[in-house]
Amino acid sequence: MANSRFEYVKAFEQADYLLPNTWIVVRIDGRGFTKLCTKYGFEKPNDRRALDLMNAAAKAVMTELPDITIGYGVSDEFSFVFHKTCTLFERRSSKLVSTIVSTFTAYYVHLWSTYFTDMPLSPPFPSFDGRAVCYPSVQNLRDYMSWRQVDCHINNLYNTTFWSLVQLGGMSGTEAEKFLAGTVSADKNEILFSRFHINYNNEPEIYKKGSVVIRDYELVDPGTHNAAEVADDIAEPVKQSKTQEENDRKRRAKARVMVEHLDIIKDDFWDRRPWLLSNKPGKVPKQT
Amino acid sequence: MANSRFEYVKAFEQADYLLPNTWIVVRIDGRGFTKLCTKYGFEKPNDRRALDLMNAAAKAVMTELPDITIGYGVSDEFSFVFHKTCTLFERRSSKLVSTIVSTFTAYYVHLWSTYFTDMPLSPPFPSFDGRAVCYPSVQNLRDYMSWRQVDCHINNLYNTTFWSLVQLGGMSGTEAEKFLAGTVSADKNEILFSRFHINYNNEPEIYKKGSVVIRDYELVDPGTHNAAEVADDIAEPVKQSKTQEENDRKRRAKARVMVEHLDIIKDDFWDRRPWLLSNKPGKVPKQT
Amino acid sequence: MANSRFEYVKAFEQADYLLPNTWIVVRIDGRGFTKLCTKYGFEKPNDRRALDLMNAAAKAVMTELPDITIGYGVSDEFSFVFHKTCTLFERRSSKLVSTIVSTFTAYYVHLWSTYFTDMPLSPPFPSFDGRAVCYPSVQNLRDYMSWRQVDCHINNLYNTTFWSLVQLGGMSGTEAEKFLAGTVSADKNEILFSRFHINYNNEPEIYKKGSVVIRDYELVDPGTHNAAEVADDIAEPVKQSKTQEENDRKRRAKARVMVEHLDIIKDDFWDRRPWLLSNKPGKVPKQT
Amino acid sequence: MANSRFEYVKAFEQADYLLPNTWIVVRIDGRGFTKLCTKYGFEKPNDRRALDLMNAAAKAVMTELPDITIGYGVSDEFSFVFHKTCTLFERRSSKLVSTIVSTFTAYYVHLWSTYFTDMPLSPPFPSFDGRAVCYPSVQNLRDYMSWRQVDCHINNLYNTTFWSLVQLGGMSGTEAEKFLAGTVSADKNEILFSRFHINYNNEPEIYKKGSVVIRDYELVDPGTHNAAEVADDIAEPVKQSKTQEENDRKRRAKARVMVEHLDIIKDDFWDRRPWLLSNKPGKVPKQT
Repeated sequence: MANSRFEYVKAFEQADYLLPNTWIVVRIDGRGFTKLCTKYGFEKPNDRRALDLMNAAAKAVMTELPDITIGYGVSDEFSFVFHKTCTLFERRSSKLVSTIVSTFTAYYVHLWSTYFTDMPLSPPFPSFDGRAVCYPSVQNLRDYMSWRQVDCHINNLYNTTFWSLVQLGGMSGTEAEKFLAGTVSADKNEILFSRFHINYNNEPEIYKKGSVVIRDYELVDPGTHNAAEVADDIAEPVKQSKTQEENDRKRRAKARVMVEHLDIIKDDFWDRRPWLLSNKPGKVPKQT
Repeated sequence: MANSRFEYVKAFEQADYLLPNTWIVVRIDGRGFTKLCTKYGFEKPNDRRALDLMNAAAKAVMTELPDITIGYGVSDEFSFVFHKTCTLFERRSSKLVSTIVSTFTAYYVHLWSTYFTDMPLSPPFPSFDGRAVCYPSVQNLRDYMSWRQVDCHINNLYNTTFWSLVQLGGMSGTEAEKFLAGTVSADKNEILFSRFHINYNNEPEIYKKGSVVIRDYELVDPGTHNAAEVADDIAEPVKQSKTQEENDRKRRAKARVMVEHLDIIKDDFWDRRPWLLSNKPGKVPKQT
Repeated sequence: MANSRFEYVKAFEQADYLLPNTWIVVRIDGRGFTKLCTKYGFEKPNDRRALDLMNAAAKAVMTELPDITIGYGVSDEFSFVFHKTCTLFERRSSKLVSTIVSTFTAYYVHLWSTYFTDMPLSPPFPSFDGRAVCYPSVQNLRDYMSWRQVDCHINNLYNTTFWSLVQLGGMSGTEAEKFLAGTVSADKNEILFSRFHINYNNEPEIYKKGSVVIRDYELVDPGTHNAAEVADDIAEPVKQSKTQEENDRKRRAKARVMVEHLDIIKDDFWDRRPWLLSNKPGKVPKQT
Repeated sequence: MANSRFEYVKAFEQADYLLPNTWIVVRIDGRGFTKLCTKYGFEKPNDRRALDLMNAAAKAVMTELPDITIGYGVSDEFSFVFHKTCTLFERRSSKLVSTIVSTFTAYYVHLWSTYFTDMPLSPPFPSFDGRAVCYPSVQNLRDYMSWRQVDCHINNLYNTTFWSLVQLGGMSGTEAEKFLAGTVSADKNEILFSRFHINYNNEPEIYKKGSVVIRDYELVDPGTHNAAEVADDIAEPVKQSKTQEENDRKRRAKARVMVEHLDIIKDDFWDRRPWLLSNKPGKVPKQT
C-alpha cells in the first residue's frame, strides 16, 4: 500500500539475529510468583496442580512449535531448546522469545481452571518474562540443562526440609532458615529422616528431578550412535529435499509430546534419545 | 544457595540494555490472525468485539505497568511507549518485550469469553509476538505514532471499500482487488459514496483512527507548556525525592486508563496532554 | 565472481548499525602508553611533543573524514564526534571505529619522527584501541565533552602538583601520592603556589583545557541562532539537493582544520560555532 | 579521582562481549587500496613488495598478540583467529578489532619504506578497517579459512589471465573483461597456456595460495591426535595452573612467527599442526 513520510522510523528497528549454528535456549520465568503463590494458596514446598499446569502449558508450546526439541521445567520456570540448525523466524531473538512467552501464557491462563478448579483467576493475571541464550556446543547445552536440574535438586531439598521444619516441626520461617544456615545436603537428608521419618529419595520424582518435555519416539540402545559428535560437526542447516522435510514434519507431528521426570545430567538420557541432538525425528512407537 | 560446576553457562547470556535517554516502543502483533479471523468468523472489514478485546487487554497492560505512558492499537497490533527516562527492568529489551507480550496475552485469552460470548477458544490459542525499538527524539516518537495511524487510515479505507465491493457489490475478492488496483484515496471515497452511499467520514472513529490508550488527566490549554522541548532537553533520569516519587506513583495509580479514538498526528493531541512527554502525571479529574 | 560452498560463513557476521539520529562519539586510547612514556622519556607531567603529535594525527583524521564535526583530545586519548545525521559506512560501528583508529595510528607513527626528532620508534610500536558510543541529545553530547574536559582538568591539576612535589620538592612518588591523598582542588592550588610559586592559572592552556580540533569558520554572535534546539528537532538525515551537498562538501574541504585550547563546557563555545550542532558548514574566513 | 556530574554519560556505552566458546575471526581490509595501487604504481596482477609488507605487518601483530593462533592474508586483507577459549579484553569486540587494526597499521606504515625503498608515503596514508565474526565450531572456522583461500585462488587466476591479456596480449582492460566473461577455470588455464605459454601451476605459491602466518612448532604425524574433536568438546576456558600458563606463554614467545604459502583447505594442514585447534603450544624446533 501507499507509503507515508513517516516510514523512515522503520529504520530504527535493530537486527537481533542470533548467531547461526548455536543451540538457542529460551527460558521463561513466572513474574511475581511469590505473590501469586500466596494469593491462590499454593501448597508448600510444592503444589502439584501448579506444576501440572506449567507442564500442560509447556506441552502445548512444544506442540505448536515443532522446532523445539526439548523443554525442561522446574518451579515457575521453563527452558525450551531450539536445535542449532533451527532457522525459525530467521533466528530473531525477540520473535522467538515473545512467541514462546505468549503461547505459554495463553495456555497457562486458559488451562488454569482445569487445574485450579475452585479458584478462578482474578487480576493481576499470571505472566512470564523470557530471554534467549545461545550455546555453541553440545557440551554447553548439556551443561545448561544440568545447571537447571542441579538447581532443582538443591532448591527442592532445601524447601522440603524447610517446610518440614515449619509444617511438621512447628518452627517459624525465620527459625527454620537459621536452623538450616550452613547445612549441606547430607545434613538436610539427615534432618528429614531423623526428625520426620522422611526419606528424601522417596519423594516424588517430579519434585526431585523437575519435568522434561520431549516427543515420544522409541528409545535406542546406548552406544549405537554418536549424536553429540555428529551435532557438533554440523556446520550449517542441512538442505533437505522437500519430501524428506515433509516426512520429518509428519513424524514430528505424529509423535506424542510427553512429560517425564528423568535424570538429564547423565549420558544415558541423551544416548537413548539421539533425536534430541541430531534433530532427526525418531521412530514413532506403535499406539497400544 | 550452593553453586555447581555448571554455573559457567550463565556467562553466555548477553546484555540487551536499550540505549538510555531514548523513547522505547514495544509493538506487539497477533500471530497468524488471518487464520484466527476465519476460525472465529470475525466480521469484515472490522470486528468490533475483536477490537474491544484488544483494547481491554491493552488497558490491563497499562494498568499493571504504570511506566507505560501511551498505547496505540489498530487491527491485531498494539504499540506501547515507555518514557525516555524509564528505567524499568534496567531497560533490558527481552524483559520489557516479554513482560508486555505475556501480560497482554493473559488478558486477551482470559477476557475472550467476555467479548466472544458464544465462541469458546480452542487450540491453537491466540498469541502475539513483539519487539522493542528506540527513538531518540520526541519528533521520532511522534513520527512513529503518526506512521501507525496513517497506516490505520490507509488500510481501513482500502478494506472498507474492498469489503463493500464484495459484500454489497457482489464482486469476488479477486475482482475487488483488481478493481482497486491503482486507485488513490479520493477514488475509494468516490466508489464508496457513488456505489454504496457510504460517506467514509461517517464511519466509526475506532475504525478510522484506531485506539489510543492513555491515563485520564485534565486536559490543559495548548500553548501553556512546551513539553516536547522540555522532554528533548532531558539528559538523564531525574532523581526525585522519595516523597515526589510516591506522589507521582499515587497519581498515576488513581488516574483511570481510558481508550479514545483521536487524531494523534496533529500537535493538538500532544499539546493538551503534556504528561505524555513530560512524564509528570497530570491532574486527576474529579469523579462525577 | 564464482561462489564456493564455503560462502555460507558470511552469514555469521552480525549487524552493528548504530541507532539512527544519535550523536556518535568514537574515543580512542593509547595502548600501554605508561610503558611508552618511560621508553621514550616523555616529560612529566606533560610532554608537549607527545601532545602536538596527538593533535597532528587528529587533524589528519578530521581532514580525511569530513563527516567528523569536532575532536577533543587529552593525554593519550582522543574523541571524535559524528553528527547525528551522519550516514557514513551506514553507521556500522566496527567500520567507524576501525577506520578512525587506523587513520590515527598511521599518522601518529608516520609523524613520530617529526616530533621526536632524535628518538626513532622501535617495536613494539604505539597503537590505539577504540569504541563507539551513541548519545541521543545535544545535552548528552555536550555532557560527554564536558566529562572529558573536567577529567582533563582534574588529572592535570593532580599531575602538576604531584610532579612538582617530586621534581621540585624532592619527594618520592609514594610520598607525593600519600601527601596528596584526600586533598581537594583548592589544596592543590595552594600547595603549588605556596611551595613552588606556581600559579596554576598561568599553566599553558593546552595542559589545562586539552585540545579541541575543529574546522575554521567565522564565529557568529551568540544569540543569533539556536543550533542546539534545531539539532534536537532533526528527526532524520535531511535530503539535500546534489548541488547543496556539493557546496557543503567544498566548504568543508576549504575550511582549515585547526587545534585550539578552549573551554568547551560553557555555552559560549557552542553558541559561537553553530555549525558544530547544525552540521551546516559556516563561512570560511578570508585568508590573510 | 573526583567524580563530576557529567559521569552519567558513561552509562551510554553498550556491551559488545562476543559469545563465549566461539572462534573469533578479525578480518581487516585495506581502505581505498585501488587508489593506493595506482598512486604508488603497484605491479599487476600482484606486487610482491606489497604482499611482503602485508605479511611483515601481520607477523608483528601476531608477535605482539600471542593470543592469535593463525593469520591468513591475501591481497589487501588479513584474517586473524583467536582460539575459542580466548578471554583477551574480556572478548570485547571493539577492543579486539581496534587493537589489531591499529597494530597492523602501525607496522604497515612504519615498514613501508623497507619494502618501497624509493617511494616515500604521502598523505592520505594507507589505512585499514576491520570487523569481528564468531564461529561456533571447528568446521565453521575451517570453512571460513577455506572460503578466503578459494577466493584467493579464484581472484588470482582471473587477475593473472586478465593482466596477461592486457600486458602481453595487447588488449584494453574492457576488451580483456569482455573476453573473460563467462569463462570457467579450465578456460583461463587454457588461455594462459595456449596464448602466453604460462602454466598457472608454476605461478608463485604466494600468489596462488595466499599467506599463512603461524608459530613455528614441530609438525606432528597426522593421525596422532584429534585436535578438532577435542576443540569442539571444550566447553569453557580451561583453568590452568599459574605454572602451566607461564610455561605456555614462554613457549609461545619462543616460537618464531613465520609466513608460509600452504593449502589450508585440506585436512593435512590442520592434522600436522594440532596446536592451531588445541591452543596448546607445540614443541619449539631446535634452532639450526
